[in-house]
Amino acid sequence: MSDKPVTVGAVLYPAFELLDLFGPLEMYSALGSERIQIHMVAEQAGPVSSSMGVDGPLGPKAMADFSFDDVPALDILLVPGGVGTIPELENEKLLDFLRSRSRQAQIVSSVCTGSALLARAGVLDGRRATSNKQVFALAVGQSDQVKWVEQARWVEDGKFFTSSGVSAGMDMTLSVIEQQFGVEAADTVCHFTEYTRHLDSSVDPFADDLNAMAQAMGLA
Amino acid sequence: MSDKPVTVGAVLYPAFELLDLFGPLEMYSALGSERIQIHMVAEQAGPVSSSMGVDGPLGPKAMADFSFDDVPALDILLVPGGVGTIPELENEKLLDFLRSRSRQAQIVSSVCTGSALLARAGVLDGRRATSNKQVFALAVGQSDQVKWVEQARWVEDGKFFTSSGVSAGMDMTLSVIEQQFGVEAADTVCHFTEYTRHLDSSVDPFADDLNAMAQAMGLA
Repeated sequence: MSDKPVTVGAVLYPAFELLDLFGPLEMYSALGSERIQIHMVAEQAGPVSSSMGVDGPLGPKAMADFSFDDVPALDILLVPGGVGTIPELENEKLLDFLRSRSRQAQIVSSVCTGSALLARAGVLDGRRATSNKQVFALAVGQSDQVKWVEQARWVEDGKFFTSSGVSAGMDMTLSVIEQQFGVEAADTVCHFTEYTRHLDSSVDPFADDLNAMAQAMGLA
Repeated sequence: MSDKPVTVGAVLYPAFELLDLFGPLEMYSALGSERIQIHMVAEQAGPVSSSMGVDGPLGPKAMADFSFDDVPALDILLVPGGVGTIPELENEKLLDFLRSRSRQAQIVSSVCTGSALLARAGVLDGRRATSNKQVFALAVGQSDQVKWVEQARWVEDGKFFTSSGVSAGMDMTLSVIEQQFGVEAADTVCHFTEYTRHLDSSVDPFADDLNAMAQAMGLA
């Protein structure tokens, strides 16, 4: 990429899953502010509740510094998952934002059910992609034009990187970092964060309960 | 613990490290709001910049819902690390808060350089404890009354749980969850978060560069 810091757009919505967002952002931030600039963006600027905060005003939140309308150009788009994904599937403003910014971004990435939002926006049509296996039907139900992969820690297809649930987002992000900044940069990030990376994207140790949670929630 | 949700106090200060905080909070939040309530607390309520935000107003932040003066009783104290640890070693209000709340808490825990703050507050005197190995001298320098452990992913001594850097906080937290809620609860959290847990606290894969970063920063 260029000499300017690479901009990462972290897309927030109510009831996002904490580690889906902050795991990847830790990995990016460990590259340092000369290489990476993180823009926190939501439909409106201000605090955004995580999944823990849906029952009331307290609990962990993220702060959006930008709205969809005023966020600068984004080189990397990062879409977390979480229980909040489901209502956002009907949010045309969010889907429009994902469509327009995905065209411009060099990397489009999602964690967990974030790929359901990208699929709903039509962004993944014709691409291989994955999602959280415990609610896999949620993603698959958004588009039959996506080549959904049932066993993968994460999937890379061109500029599109989609991961399985929660922690898998860190492995997916390290793969983006390796592609964009080199393997030494990814190794340095792992060492700094003391993270034992999953290196093989096809090994999916948590794919044993396909749709188990979705069935429990009445979604599949 | 009791039938009421267990309260976790996440102690925020400027330039905390993102995953030190949100990794453990993901693990706790996966227990559900019937079992866990997370209180975000800082010297003053409001947004608190992470290490990525120290150069300016943008970048990932956490929101403190409570100040040190008004946060409810805390069953579990969680102190993250980060480059912001160093100025906080001189913050008597923070140190007083850690002293008084550590006496009342059932679990006192830290990630990375968070143990330097606990040691400075005198909370770890007579206890075995660990810290980030890359800046180990920073923690050791705060108290010679602590039995510092040079090789450990995390250390448990009575109600005190201290971990090595960043990602190690998730393994430490899973150990707290296992002790307080049982091994099945910890397994369920790992499955939900798709996290491959480090199970042996004495295996420390990132302890090879003892004080390397501290030397680079002129701290050791």
